[in-house]
Amino acid sequence: MPYGHLGSMRTRPGRRDEVVAILTEGAAALREAGCHLYVVGVSETDDDLVWVSEVWESQAHHEGSLELPAVREQISRAMPMLTGEFETHPLRVVGGLGVES
Amino acid sequence: MPYGHLGSMRTRPGRRDEVVAILTEGAAALREAGCHLYVVGVSETDDDLVWVSEVWESQAHHEGSLELPAVREQISRAMPMLTGEFETHPLRVVGGLGVES
Repeated sequence: MPYGHLGSMRTRPGRRDEVVAILTEGAAALREAGCHLYVVGVSETDDDLVWVSEVWESQAHHEGSLELPAVREQISRAMPMLTGEFETHPLRVVGGLGVES
Repeated sequence: MPYGHLGSMRTRPGRRDEVVAILTEGAAALREAGCHLYVVGVSETDDDLVWVSEVWESQAHHEGSLELPAVREQISRAMPMLTGEFETHPLRVVGGLGVES
């Protein structure tokens, strides 16, 4: 079963779109790291909240991706624009449309 | 921009897998209602929690889908197995991998 990860991050006021630009800039490269799906969305109800919904081959693939130089570099650029308030929901993907189960 | 919807529901003890079966049974049919993506996952940390991550053509398409007879019938079957604790995060999808932005 694929591994799913839902995560939110709160951005400092006015910095949301810069964070979104960083999060989306290298998304295509994640495919070869075992990423099936990576969806970046901004909240419709909270101007400083970004959600990322991901599906990975496995939890190990997801964790491995966080060690990739390009990803580490992106995280270090985004971090100063975040407040440090994160929400994280690890999931086992069990089915649906547009994703293999 | 597509519309994203992240939602969680808490199931009554022991009923999670029945709820998941209902949620996933007709997922392919959602495509013609304007659904790009519909991912059902069970929490890795909470035995009674189900998350659904969706991407739709628009918010109107998502709302319209809730009026489809098959969807209404699924909701009515699942509802008695839910505690009534929901979380809902409406999103504007801005990019990523595996989804058009």
